[in-house]
This record gives sequence, structure tokens and C-alpha cells, in this order.
Amino acid sequence: MNNICKSILSLKPYQGGKPISELQRELGLDNIVKLASNENPLPSSKKVQQAIAKAANEVGRYPDGNGFELKQAIAQHLSVSAGQITLGNGSNDILELMARVVVCSAKDEVIFSQYAFVVYPLVTQALGATAVVTPANDFGHDLAAMLAAVTENTKLIFIANPNNPTGTWLEDDEIYAFLSKVPSTVIVVLDQAYIEYLEANDATVQWLKEFDNLVITRTFSKAYGLAGLRVGYALSSVVTADYLNRIRQPFNVNHIAQSAAIAALADGEFLTHSVTANKQGLLQLAMGFDELGLSYIPSFANFIAVKVGNASVVYQQLLESGFIVRPVEMENYLRVSVGTKNENKTFLDTLKSLL
Amino acid sequence: MNNICKSILSLKPYQGGKPISELQRELGLDNIVKLASNENPLPSSKKVQQAIAKAANEVGRYPDGNGFELKQAIAQHLSVSAGQITLGNGSNDILELMARVVVCSAKDEVIFSQYAFVVYPLVTQALGATAVVTPANDFGHDLAAMLAAVTENTKLIFIANPNNPTGTWLEDDEIYAFLSKVPSTVIVVLDQAYIEYLEANDATVQWLKEFDNLVITRTFSKAYGLAGLRVGYALSSVVTADYLNRIRQPFNVNHIAQSAAIAALADGEFLTHSVTANKQGLLQLAMGFDELGLSYIPSFANFIAVKVGNASVVYQQLLESGFIVRPVEMENYLRVSVGTKNENKTFLDTLKSLL
Repeated sequence: MNNICKSILSLKPYQGGKPISELQRELGLDNIVKLASNENPLPSSKKVQQAIAKAANEVGRYPDGNGFELKQAIAQHLSVSAGQITLGNGSNDILELMARVVVCSAKDEVIFSQYAFVVYPLVTQALGATAVVTPANDFGHDLAAMLAAVTENTKLIFIANPNNPTGTWLEDDEIYAFLSKVPSTVIVVLDQAYIEYLEANDATVQWLKEFDNLVITRTFSKAYGLAGLRVGYALSSVVTADYLNRIRQPFNVNHIAQSAAIAALADGEFLTHSVTANKQGLLQLAMGFDELGLSYIPSFANFIAVKVGNASVVYQQLLESGFIVRPVEMENYLRVSVGTKNENKTFLDTLKSLL
Repeated sequence: MNNICKSILSLKPYQGGKPISELQRELGLDNIVKLASNENPLPSSKKVQQAIAKAANEVGRYPDGNGFELKQAIAQHLSVSAGQITLGNGSNDILELMARVVVCSAKDEVIFSQYAFVVYPLVTQALGATAVVTPANDFGHDLAAMLAAVTENTKLIFIANPNNPTGTWLEDDEIYAFLSKVPSTVIVVLDQAYIEYLEANDATVQWLKEFDNLVITRTFSKAYGLAGLRVGYALSSVVTADYLNRIRQPFNVNHIAQSAAIAALADGEFLTHSVTANKQGLLQLAMGFDELGLSYIPSFANFIAVKVGNASVVYQQLLESGFIVRPVEMENYLRVSVGTKNENKTFLDTLKSLL
């Protein structure tokens, strides 16, 4: 195999985590509480489960390649046109598709922030493009630095809000001012994977009328509780959606995932419960960290980055005690997803015993 | 938007079919029988349905990004190592990933046959590479022509066996001889989406030991009856699997799809029933076409390409009569998927009435 593209050779082999069941076996534990992947800790919506049961009889047929019903549901929910929506196999799929539409050569530049979502550098590297990483400002995005980093080679800017893994938040007016200054030839992806936790912050959706270069990405993996089903979407201009759809795999979102997402969108009660439980959980973890004298980054999402001294040692100790959290690239920090009330409590108790 | 990559601009906007329910509404029909997408017409496996019901409670968590259990099951089933397997969101995902690993510039060439699977030209075009299309030989692949088309720029050769949309079949010894002559720097993808209908033709899997450049792709969408769930996989050298996994999206196969595929692989009874019913259906359609004096291409898959005179007129008449089949690029031919016994019968009756 001497004919592999250079960009592929530059990527590291994929190192996914082991399944929890495997980890339990290896560590001799009856149970491991997963606070590692910013998943929704609640049992899944009954309406979603009913939709899945119904769709289970229909798996012999291909999914609807246009996602007609799901797009109609999203369009109605957010007052956009179905033509502005592109469905993705998780929003990761959209992030990659968007990059593939505009990143055409090695000199093309993609801007993102230090401490940003891990997919941005991966996508950039896979395409053999040039990553331009701007230093974080108090862990969050430094929009002034990002704007200053724009050159004639810039094709794409990724901004996550709230940001992962920091949980930091940029106010709408800051982003609006930023968009007003970015050249219209540069695509700005505003990644809102955690936006529902902020209770319907949909002002940004209105900006699509003004900024043809704005692409908003959202997901059903977080507040809607469908991480296992992989459904995300982009909101954009109709023109951009058309380009995304040219390279999207027609059946990228499977039939059960489409059916479940329609049900999830209609289950406002589950969403409200998720948002409320998450707020309480964030507070519970923050108060617990305060009591333990640990500093943390105030979070607007469903996780908190907490400073624990030697993060790799504490990570391992937590794991052996039955809690898996996420090591991050911020020195001395671990990212802890909000669990159920009881999971948060036993986690804090365990952390206390280890410090 | 003046910064779109040329290869994207060259693609046509996606024109997926309308959902059957929409078509029915438009045409004022109570029912449309779909014989258009080479799906398994049988009700889905009970074991699959049970697996889906169980997995429905687990959708809040991300899928296993390594597909540990599904890979173990496939590895055992086919006597390969798990490290040789790459999971895809349908085998289309694998076809695209493989191309992205080796197609690095516009001068890179991808060889495939006239009348081949529509994804091969699409993938080639999306990457801005050079498509080399060899003329068909009596509708099937002309391996001598494909070999003669190899140049120093050839990166990838796609061979579907059985082929879609023709249903033609290349004998193992022909393919083996071909592989022996292709330079080892050229990846040969042997697309076996329909292989299970030929009852465990697994001799080719053994060739992986001999040919590092061989990649076999398979799917759960056909004989296993899981088109709606999008699960395919590649068998290759461990080295090639490693490259594929570097650019694969970690959660490309969702949790319910993985669970259902494991159950499908274990349900030998369903597979046997699918294969038997398909053989009978192929015979039923072929005999029906014989009676109607229509010529067709003898098929080794779950569909038949039949010559109907003015294909676009007959297509439309069939649609208005409640049967959707697939127009193909072979003049005067339509591709008809094998349906249930009753669907095949009513289809033949309707076709007769239209001729």
C-alpha cells in the first residue's frame, strides 16, 4: 500500500473507547457510570420508543433519502424552509460535509479555537488543509483573534456555542458583530450541539436571512437524548444546503433514526425535563466542586470541565472506582458530563474520597 | 458562495425519489408496490425486531464507535480477524471512504464498467478524479478491458459481483485471474452487495490472504433485510482497514443498526428463507417475461433488467397502475426488483395488460 493520500497518512489510527461492558470486565466492576460523552442521562422518551417500535417493522425498506417528514417537522419547529435543512448522520457528518464543499486544496485555511471540538482539527487534517488555531480567551473563543486570522485563503471558520469541552458561551451580539465583519466568501459554521439546554435560543436562526455564509448545526444527540441514533442537521441558505446535499450520502440518516427524531421533536415534555434536570445537575456538580475547593469553568452545556490536580492520575482512580470521565487537552482538567442526580452525588462522593 | 470546490460544482443536485406515501397521494392510489430499490420484500426477522426493541432503551448513549460486538460476529461468521473489518453506514459509506483514502488528485484514475453501480461514478466525480469507464461485455464487466485500462495513474477499480443493475455474474476464477494481473498498488474493490443470494460464496474471502490490495464490500441491506438501517462492511487487509478507520466517522453505524445486524447475522433461518424466496421470485419473473415474449438479462441477484420497448413510457404506465420499478441507463430496459410471490404475479399481470 504505497498509494495512500498524504492527508490520510497524517491522521492517527482511530482509538475509540472500549465498550463499557468490556471495561467492566477488565476492571472487575459490576457497574461503570459513564460521565464521559455528554449524553443525556435520562431514560429515553416513551414517544421515541413507540416510534422506534413502529419503525422496526419497516427496516427492510431504504430510508427516505430526502428525509421529507423529518425536514418538515424541523422546518415547522424553527420557522425555516425545508430547503434550508440538510440532515446528517449526527452533526459530525454535517461538519465534515461542509468542509468537503469548500476546502479544495492544501493551502485552504480552516480557523477554529484552541480548546474546541475535536472534530474540527480532524476534518481539517483529513482534507489535507491548513488548520489555523487561535488561542483561547479565558477558555472560550476569542472572536477578535479569529477575525484577525482570516486571510484570502480562509474557507471555513468553526465556532461552537456553547463550546465543548469548555462549556463556555458567547453572547449573540458578539457573534452577530463577528458575522458582520467576516468576508461573505468564508463559511462560518456555528455549532449549536448544546443549544437546547439554553431553552430555545433561536435568534441566530433569523440571521440566516442576513448571512448567506452562515451555517448553523444542531443535533438530536444531547437534550433530545438520541446520541445512539445519529441525527444532526444544518440550517443554511438554500444554496449551501444544495451543495451539502450533492455530496451527502442519500441514506446517511437511517429509517429508525428519522422516525425517532420526528417523535423526539414532538415530545416537548421530555425536552423540558432534560433541560430542567440538566440545570439542576450542573448546579449540583458546581456546588460539589465548590465544597471540594476545586475550580471549574462555569458551563452552559451538559458537562463541566473541572481542575483536579494531576488529571491523568485522577482519571484512572475514578475509572477504577467505577466512574468514567473525559480527559481533555487542558492541563489538570477533566470534563465531567452531568449524570442523574444520584450519579452526580456518588461521583462527588467518590471524587472527595480520592482527593 | 463563490468558493465552492470545482468537483462539488460538477455534481448534480441530489434528486431522490419521493416517499411512497407522497407518490400515492399524488397519483390518487391506495397502494404502490415498490419493486424499485432491490429491497428484501419479506417482513423483517423476528429476532431483528426483538434486538431493536431491546436497543430502543439504550438510544441515549453513543453507539460503540469500534463496533466491537458486530465485528466479532462478522469475524466469526466469515473466519476473518476483526481487524480486517471496517463498518460502514451501508456499503456506500465504505465505497466512498475507500476512494477518499487513495484518490488524492484530479489525475488519479478510477476504473469501473459501463452499466455499473451508480455510486462509483458519483464518488469519483465528488473527488474530482478521472473516471475510466470500460465498455460492458454482454451487459457484464469486461475484465480484459478493465485490465487494459490500468495506467500508472490508476488508484482504484470497482467491480460489482453480482452486478447492479444488470444482475450479471463473473465466475471466481475470472476474478482471481484478474486480481493476479492487477498491479499491487491498485486497490480492487469487489462489491458483493448481493452475494448472499448465491448461498455463501465465501471463496473470495480467502483471497484476502493473497492480495493486500483486495477490498471486499458487503451489506445487510439485501438478503439480510436491513436496508432501512444502513449497515455495510469491508473486508480487507488489516493495513487497509486501519486507513479506512482513520477517516471513518466513529459513529457511522448507529446503535440500533449494530444491534439489529448482530441479530440478523445470527438468524440463519431468515436468510435461508430470503434466499429461497428470491430464487423462486426470480424464476417467476423470468417465466412471466418469457410468456410475454420480453427479453431480459439472466440475473444472479434480487432483481431483473427486462427489455420493454419504450422504457420511460412503460415506467410511467406501471407507476400509474401502482408499481414502481427503476429506470436504468440501458436503453429500453427497466430494472424490476423481486417482490413477494403475490407482488410478482400482480406486476406481471399489470405489465401484460400494458403491452
